[in-house]
Amino acid sequence: MATDEVTKIEEHSLLGGAHSVGLVETQTWTFTDPPLELDCGQTLSPVTQAYETYGELSPARDNAILIFHALSGDAHLAGYHSPNDRKPGWWDIMVGPGKPFDTRRYFVICANVLGGCKGTTGPSSIDPRTGKPFGMTFPIVTIGDMVRAQKRLVEHLGITKLLAVVGGSMGGMLALDWAVRYPDAADSVLAIATSARVNAQGIAFNVVGRQAIMADPRWQNGNYYGKESPYDGLAIARMVAHITYLSEKQMHDKFGRQLQDRESFGFDFQTDFQVESYIKYQGDSFVRRFDANSYLYITKAIDYFDLANGHGSLVQAFAGVQSTFLVISFPSDWLFPTYQAKELVRALQANGISTTFLEIPSEYGHDAFLLPSEQLSNAIAGFLANAQQRVQNAARGGNGK
Amino acid sequence: MATDEVTKIEEHSLLGGAHSVGLVETQTWTFTDPPLELDCGQTLSPVTQAYETYGELSPARDNAILIFHALSGDAHLAGYHSPNDRKPGWWDIMVGPGKPFDTRRYFVICANVLGGCKGTTGPSSIDPRTGKPFGMTFPIVTIGDMVRAQKRLVEHLGITKLLAVVGGSMGGMLALDWAVRYPDAADSVLAIATSARVNAQGIAFNVVGRQAIMADPRWQNGNYYGKESPYDGLAIARMVAHITYLSEKQMHDKFGRQLQDRESFGFDFQTDFQVESYIKYQGDSFVRRFDANSYLYITKAIDYFDLANGHGSLVQAFAGVQSTFLVISFPSDWLFPTYQAKELVRALQANGISTTFLEIPSEYGHDAFLLPSEQLSNAIAGFLANAQQRVQNAARGGNGK
Repeated sequence: MATDEVTKIEEHSLLGGAHSVGLVETQTWTFTDPPLELDCGQTLSPVTQAYETYGELSPARDNAILIFHALSGDAHLAGYHSPNDRKPGWWDIMVGPGKPFDTRRYFVICANVLGGCKGTTGPSSIDPRTGKPFGMTFPIVTIGDMVRAQKRLVEHLGITKLLAVVGGSMGGMLALDWAVRYPDAADSVLAIATSARVNAQGIAFNVVGRQAIMADPRWQNGNYYGKESPYDGLAIARMVAHITYLSEKQMHDKFGRQLQDRESFGFDFQTDFQVESYIKYQGDSFVRRFDANSYLYITKAIDYFDLANGHGSLVQAFAGVQSTFLVISFPSDWLFPTYQAKELVRALQANGISTTFLEIPSEYGHDAFLLPSEQLSNAIAGFLANAQQRVQNAARGGNGK
Repeated sequence: MATDEVTKIEEHSLLGGAHSVGLVETQTWTFTDPPLELDCGQTLSPVTQAYETYGELSPARDNAILIFHALSGDAHLAGYHSPNDRKPGWWDIMVGPGKPFDTRRYFVICANVLGGCKGTTGPSSIDPRTGKPFGMTFPIVTIGDMVRAQKRLVEHLGITKLLAVVGGSMGGMLALDWAVRYPDAADSVLAIATSARVNAQGIAFNVVGRQAIMADPRWQNGNYYGKESPYDGLAIARMVAHITYLSEKQMHDKFGRQLQDRESFGFDFQTDFQVESYIKYQGDSFVRRFDANSYLYITKAIDYFDLANGHGSLVQAFAGVQSTFLVISFPSDWLFPTYQAKELVRALQANGISTTFLEIPSEYGHDAFLLPSEQLSNAIAGFLANAQQRVQNAARGGNGK
């Protein structure tokens, strides 16, 4: 190991250890012209996108990986914004030197989605026509709109073709949409805990969340900026969603019917059970970091997403797609069940697209993709290494097969 | 068939057909002394209970069946309150002449639970000490309290030992509690889509529902009687609960991603999907028939219920129980999964208690017990016929085995 490398790793070790990307900064990029054409028929300009990058873009510009975040995620994928941060980025366990998304080999990009509240243009942004936050005048955006915005960002970064597009949950929807929308703009597609469309039960849960927000009198038809936010409604939305992210067995193993700070039942309407305390905490902490209107818009985008839309069928949607796919599901994920991943895989295979399907044993439900897993790490690392090998062979004019 | 019988059936057929119990009335009975001692340590008096009965009590008083309703049910089990009723009682498909709970053979009783809002004393009742509705000053009640109140009612009706106690979902919890509390007061116990305790996920969903009600500013700490009710909060509570009553497959088969009264997406926050319309309807219609405070109290009672409480273990809870059990689960019920029914069955069998376990194929989730099913009907009819045979043999001094 060269001395420089040791020094670099030692610096990293100050914050998050040798495998951390260390201190990182969120950047923004704004485009105005041409405006972004949205599926709803409206246009949007300017569009600002918050993003982070990790690692170095190779001279051949062939090692870039775009990772899409899920519903409540943001551009802060890995590392720390300040030495005082309690937590690193949302997928820090997977992104860094020596990690599956190895930043010594890959240039990793993550951007906050359109409609979000973490630096990218969304309902809490200022509408230049009025000088006030958009609120509910923000146009309905789709997963496709989010993807088109990020394509502009990727081009701005000088990248024509990505090594891989990657995402879990809603992020997987963006990855799939990218693959279909730009059939030759990503060598590989990694879709985790996701599906070509959310099922009826998933829509119903999203409806409950939106109704809870819109029923909160502080929501004020979305015009709450500068005043009290609809915290209660958003907390309830998050609580119900959070239940869907965990498996029943996991909740049972973690909490069972254990009481919280009580020897026996309180016989009141305070918190009796640990699971009660936990789920309330999830709601309360979420409202401090998320905008209620963004929650409305992003869940609507999820509901609307159907990869088959405009293609006749899911099989037809994948016609002409050149990418190689890895589809991963978890048996305890009941929000995006394995059977939906298999529908995806069948449609890919019907097109003769090189596809690997992996159901990784886990009891941690939908959120399993966010948790440490040797099998998940190995699958991702191997998939990316193959992709890089293939791309480099192709560049050398070799046979990547 | 005797002429009288034909006439009777023809009368029935005017309302609900030959197998209907026809027009019925809810009755009430109030006891004051001794007051009802509650698990929370308080006492309650007077206690009024609303109940209905169907069929005739036999001279030997040995054909009475007590059916307990679920969370949102009431005493109106079967038949019609008026010729204009659009719907019969909640388990009309199972209760009537020639139906599984055959009112030509059995005397069937159903009472609204303590804490309810359909005629039995609950938070919306007048507190005699103040002349105003209890609201949140109503004491926390448990499944055990509900059962003790109904035991008093059964005694008032002149019945010492029931032929059977029966219930689905929360009603099953009451049936199990009865069996353990009064080991010799029911020949048979029929527990459907239920368990000895709600699991952590079930508690979490109940927490969401209660938080939604209590976050509604119209809730006013429970003092909303005579003013606007916390409709929005209660509707959200019902929506999320209703999702847990259905299976994912059932929602998919019924609604999929079909749009509601729209040719294409509306790109607004109105109702796009059929499932969205359905789930909103469930919420809206519930608030017209249920009291929000009762929802708080009854879900709390469900959370608190643990048959092992005070017994050391579930196996010990059943020690000395004399009844014969039929436990029924449905594979698509994810609120009270089959594994929990099996826990119950194992504990019963560990005590040498005669127990039949039946997992009835159904894709209709938790609510399957409320839907027509030949297998369910046959199982109930056979179980009750055996019970009656056994009881009559025992009375004759014969050997019921």
